[in-house]
Amino acid sequence: CLFLSIEHAKSQETTELLIVTVATDETDGFVRFKESLDYFNLTVLVIGMHEEWVGGDLSRGMGGGQKINMLKRSLESYKDNTNLVLFFTDSYDVVFTGGKEEIMSKFNKFNAKLVFSAESTIWPDASLKDLYPEVTVGKRFLCSGGIIGYAPTFWEAINMQDISDTFDDQLYYTKIYLNTTLRAKLNATLDHTSQLVQNINFAKSELEIVQQGDLSRIQNTVYRTYPVVIHGNGPSKLELNYMANYIPDGWHSNFGCRKCEWNLLQLPEAEENLPTVQLAIFIEPNTPFIPEFLSRIQQLDYPKSKITLFIHTNEENTERYVSQFLLRHRVKYQGVQVISPHDGVHEATARNMALDHCILKNCDYQLSIDGNVQITNSSLIKFLMTKNKQVVGPLVKLHEKLWSNFWGALNADGYYARSADYISIVNRERTGIWNIPFISSVYLMKSETIRFLLSRVPQPYFYEDMDADMAFCAHVRQEGIFLHVTNEAEFGRLLSKANVNPGPVHPDLWQIETNKKDWEEKYIHPDFWNLTLENTEVSQPCPDVYMFPLFTEEMADAIVDVMENHGEWSGGKNKDDRLAGGYENVPTVDIHMNQVNYEKQWLHMLATYPTHIIQKVYPGYYTKASSIMMFVVRYRPSEQSFLRPHHDSSTWTMNVALNTYGEDYEGGGCRFLRYDCSVTQIPKGYALVHPGRLTHYHEGLQTMEGTRYIAVSFVDP
Amino acid sequence: CLFLSIEHAKSQETTELLIVTVATDETDGFVRFKESLDYFNLTVLVIGMHEEWVGGDLSRGMGGGQKINMLKRSLESYKDNTNLVLFFTDSYDVVFTGGKEEIMSKFNKFNAKLVFSAESTIWPDASLKDLYPEVTVGKRFLCSGGIIGYAPTFWEAINMQDISDTFDDQLYYTKIYLNTTLRAKLNATLDHTSQLVQNINFAKSELEIVQQGDLSRIQNTVYRTYPVVIHGNGPSKLELNYMANYIPDGWHSNFGCRKCEWNLLQLPEAEENLPTVQLAIFIEPNTPFIPEFLSRIQQLDYPKSKITLFIHTNEENTERYVSQFLLRHRVKYQGVQVISPHDGVHEATARNMALDHCILKNCDYQLSIDGNVQITNSSLIKFLMTKNKQVVGPLVKLHEKLWSNFWGALNADGYYARSADYISIVNRERTGIWNIPFISSVYLMKSETIRFLLSRVPQPYFYEDMDADMAFCAHVRQEGIFLHVTNEAEFGRLLSKANVNPGPVHPDLWQIETNKKDWEEKYIHPDFWNLTLENTEVSQPCPDVYMFPLFTEEMADAIVDVMENHGEWSGGKNKDDRLAGGYENVPTVDIHMNQVNYEKQWLHMLATYPTHIIQKVYPGYYTKASSIMMFVVRYRPSEQSFLRPHHDSSTWTMNVALNTYGEDYEGGGCRFLRYDCSVTQIPKGYALVHPGRLTHYHEGLQTMEGTRYIAVSFVDP
Ligand SMILES: O=C(O)CCC(=O)C(=O)O
Ligand SMILES: O=C(O)CCC(=O)C(=O)O
Ligand SMILES: [Fe+2]
Ligand SMILES: [Fe+2]
Ligand SMILES: [Mn+2]
Ligand SMILES: [Mn+2]
Ligand SMILES: [Mn+2]
Ligand SMILES: [Mn+2]
Repeated sequence: CLFLSIEHAKSQETTELLIVTVATDETDGFVRFKESLDYFNLTVLVIGMHEEWVGGDLSRGMGGGQKINMLKRSLESYKDNTNLVLFFTDSYDVVFTGGKEEIMSKFNKFNAKLVFSAESTIWPDASLKDLYPEVTVGKRFLCSGGIIGYAPTFWEAINMQDISDTFDDQLYYTKIYLNTTLRAKLNATLDHTSQLVQNINFAKSELEIVQQGDLSRIQNTVYRTYPVVIHGNGPSKLELNYMANYIPDGWHSNFGCRKCEWNLLQLPEAEENLPTVQLAIFIEPNTPFIPEFLSRIQQLDYPKSKITLFIHTNEENTERYVSQFLLRHRVKYQGVQVISPHDGVHEATARNMALDHCILKNCDYQLSIDGNVQITNSSLIKFLMTKNKQVVGPLVKLHEKLWSNFWGALNADGYYARSADYISIVNRERTGIWNIPFISSVYLMKSETIRFLLSRVPQPYFYEDMDADMAFCAHVRQEGIFLHVTNEAEFGRLLSKANVNPGPVHPDLWQIETNKKDWEEKYIHPDFWNLTLENTEVSQPCPDVYMFPLFTEEMADAIVDVMENHGEWSGGKNKDDRLAGGYENVPTVDIHMNQVNYEKQWLHMLATYPTHIIQKVYPGYYTKASSIMMFVVRYRPSEQSFLRPHHDSSTWTMNVALNTYGEDYEGGGCRFLRYDCSVTQIPKGYALVHPGRLTHYHEGLQTMEGTRYIAVSFVDP
Repeated sequence: CLFLSIEHAKSQETTELLIVTVATDETDGFVRFKESLDYFNLTVLVIGMHEEWVGGDLSRGMGGGQKINMLKRSLESYKDNTNLVLFFTDSYDVVFTGGKEEIMSKFNKFNAKLVFSAESTIWPDASLKDLYPEVTVGKRFLCSGGIIGYAPTFWEAINMQDISDTFDDQLYYTKIYLNTTLRAKLNATLDHTSQLVQNINFAKSELEIVQQGDLSRIQNTVYRTYPVVIHGNGPSKLELNYMANYIPDGWHSNFGCRKCEWNLLQLPEAEENLPTVQLAIFIEPNTPFIPEFLSRIQQLDYPKSKITLFIHTNEENTERYVSQFLLRHRVKYQGVQVISPHDGVHEATARNMALDHCILKNCDYQLSIDGNVQITNSSLIKFLMTKNKQVVGPLVKLHEKLWSNFWGALNADGYYARSADYISIVNRERTGIWNIPFISSVYLMKSETIRFLLSRVPQPYFYEDMDADMAFCAHVRQEGIFLHVTNEAEFGRLLSKANVNPGPVHPDLWQIETNKKDWEEKYIHPDFWNLTLENTEVSQPCPDVYMFPLFTEEMADAIVDVMENHGEWSGGKNKDDRLAGGYENVPTVDIHMNQVNYEKQWLHMLATYPTHIIQKVYPGYYTKASSIMMFVVRYRPSEQSFLRPHHDSSTWTMNVALNTYGEDYEGGGCRFLRYDCSVTQIPKGYALVHPGRLTHYHEGLQTMEGTRYIAVSFVDP
């Protein structure tokens, strides 16, 4: 009705709205609260904040009664202002999702002078239940987390009775409300259907994040209302944190992350003015690819003079790599502190020590990073600093898995629960910076956060019998500090430590399945991938014989190393106890992959990489990539120097050069007699594939000098 | 001593030598005896031969006493001739190997007037043994088979006592000799060391055929003597027959067969004057390649108007072929007599009937020939007639085996024994015409021989429980008729009947192993062999795909026939109960070789023929020619008409076209996708071989009309 809406508009114009809250600290929650008010241009009166209104300290765990007493002190000046509406809410666990107009309009619709928010459970005095008026739709019971009313009425309500600081404020309001005389006098009512206030606790399942125009809002899907104030009352704080990643002006499908560029820290341009950071590195047992990890640390785009290294290792294998690394790079850093295996320090202790060391060395930040985090984005440190959060980590995850370094939600026991947006965030379909309950593996903390935390919890990585990461996050959450993860960019990967390395010689060779991506980067020739594409051509040095880069030189060297370290080269004799038949027709001096416990991995390699080339060069053939003959051959003038013409027990054979013609050996190569065609000087790491039988009778040409190594596989025998 | 030899020469010049023998028939043995005398220009007095000397008939089994009485009658005119030496020997079982000069010289060396031959056993009266002078070297006892002496002395010896016709002549001479007075009076001695006469019986192991200049002689290797007269006394007649193939002027390594061109029959030039011949054909059960047999009979170079066919078959399968043959050819022949399965006549009876029929029809010859004799030399009949023997057969043998149609010797039981020259004759390293104790399968007989034989033995193919062949030869030998085999030319082959044909449809297909040569001629493409040679090139229609003629059209047709006769074509579905796995990835409408019981044979074929091409086109590859997938595919527009791209479960695949593009079907062929190369219109019987996997992804192109059949083998899976 047009007339009515005009009347409402009038009254809204002339009436003032003041948001009132009580807060003692500018916690992350308080900042979030303020930001939501600012977004809607709402004016707030903050009562009790040390710097602003009230001198002296108020403990954060104050009684609710004290809140009312503080209001009495602060609101007296408004008690006669009939044109003022006061909207009292909590702040640490409250977000506003609408502005004055909406608030006033909804308030007016109540036709009441005072409206309390409502909830579905009665608290703290359940015996009062029957005094509550019954409702057919909506929450029946009063909740003091949101109270809106005309300033004189509000004043009257808080002054009806005296209340001690320790008396419960909600019980105070409840008793007034349940007194029908007082209720009528005040013209008070409840917001049964969350027109204005949604208390999340016990209502989680009713709520949905929806987009309303440019805003993200909460819809109460039961009452079909869009409450303005979202209150994470009781244990629903993490739920509010989750929602606040979206509401009111957070992530939105049309705009993406809208707060990512807000409140950023401007880093000084001059290197010497950059803040200092302690890189706290924790290399726990069975972490693969440590050399790569360290080299990526070294490649981080941040002046080493501003970096202190704090390194914890507790295994000899990895300590070796750390020592090598420090031997070369130590001097470049501002400082280095190493806790090595013989110090006998466990993980959580080391992490606690790191925090202390950071404060001791007057760091500005600490970047905590575990050995199984491969940082591929060298701007990581600056990027995280810029985010200007107390705790923020980059998203890192297992390659092609959903396992990451953060949790989007907690279950009742405090462990991992999958949040609705977890997969979208992990897969970076939804990018932004996210308030989450748990982060690990890599995160940046401000020194002030560390100081504050240590002031409250001397050993933050200890918490009952939790493991270090969970202990830390639990403490941080408890202290009202928000944990963030950003997936705004690709930062790197998390590696799995699931499979123990079998030995000290090139253990990373064995990581082919567990940490595929890193294994490939280390061992698969970078030019290999291009040849798997449709429009590229694989070199064909002889008819139906193809050559392509397969392994890095590092791979070739590692295989030779493993073999030479193992020893026990076969005699190149026909009799061969390693084979099922005990007889090798055309014997080589060799070591089989199974002798070095690498058969499973080699088969996986065969099935994963060369098969792409096989499918391309022999279209229509679907290789099983099965093999029972995989071995490294050693040719030397003084041992076996050539291999007589023969066929292989294979449908196709792969023959990879493991060292370099002209440097490591002279001569050598593979000649295909039927085509009188030889392939020689095959570059190290390059593979030859050829049909094994019938058409490709072949021989190993004589090695004239040095040692030639090749890795041969008879595939699909 | 010069003086002595002059004296001898003189006495030889002035002294006459007359060979004396008693014979009633001109048997083959007598003819042989005469020929040897003629060779040495020796004069012979034949006593008792009906036409020449004595009227009336003398039974061949006469008593020895009669011989002496005949001598008394015949030699009276020479009784006073002191310049005459008489040399009495047997004739049917005697061959001379030296002339007058040698005889006289050796006789003179005895310094005796009368010399009897000697042997190692005493006969007929063993009680006389101790009366014999002892000897240190040589045979101790008298043998009357050879007696040489001056005519007056000889006369005196035979007239010393009266003797009845039935008294034993050897006992007569023995008693004179053992009477020292008479011995001295006659100046008689024994030829202990076979200077002049070798009685073969009991001395076989002492004897060797040796070449002495242009002559073949017998050497007594114990006495180092070269006896002039070789006497097959007692049971050693066959041994003499054997020797007489060589001595004195028979086969010789310098000259080969010297009697092959002697005493030949000149056949009249005009066809109408040629003798008539009955072809007596015996097709016994399980004889393979009857159509080929009959067609070779038809191709014999002899006027059909002079040929009567006498055909015995006793199996429906073969009777069918005979009927077809006669339908076309019967009228061309002089006459045809068929004994068919429903006559219920067994082999030996049929053979006896043939002889009778030949005489009844007034034949000049009978050529007896068995169904398993493939005559490849069309001049056979004329050739054998020309040889002018009573019984002569061509050498035929199993291909690449030593089994032939003759025996070179008999063992004690009358069965096969291997003569020293058997292998040389069978392999035609020694060619000629050979007197042998047994022949079968194919031989020519003169009608006069048949008549003579029938006059003595009414049913020559019956003899106790012997089988027909042995019965016949035993009778013929007994009648003093020589059996001959000639290996002067290649005449054909003997086929094995060892393996029973499995069914009535193209049973010869199954003969691949048993009668390889005939199988090849019938089923292997004649152009195939040339391609197995080193310097010929196999057509290569697509890379590493080869095409070559493999089967005759007859083979292709036969395979299709066998398959269509069997029926039960598969549904072309993946599920295939005939396979171990029960699953065929790329199914065709087909019948597997094992379904028609042809798997073993097909494998043998694979191993024997295409492998030559495989070795040539894929050098270095040694195929096992193993296969578990061998089948005939049928493509039709209304059934399965093409095969989608696939690999075969093989190292190499063979794909043989079984019918003709453009006649039997349109479309079809095999396309190799990786080379975009198709092979179409493959001639019937031609094989394609190609690698099965990896490089040769291929498809069966659509058959547009008619039916296309191919035989596919996946080899070395
Ligand atoms: O020496 C070569 O490259 C050939 C090796 C080879 O053919 C084999 O090991 O089977
Ligand atoms: O139709 C053709 O010639 C191809 C047959 C074939 O590839 C097969 O049976 O495996
Ligand atoms: Fe090889
Ligand atoms: Fe195929
Ligand atoms: Mn609250
Ligand atoms: Mn501490
Ligand atoms: Mn005799
Ligand atoms: Mn008869």
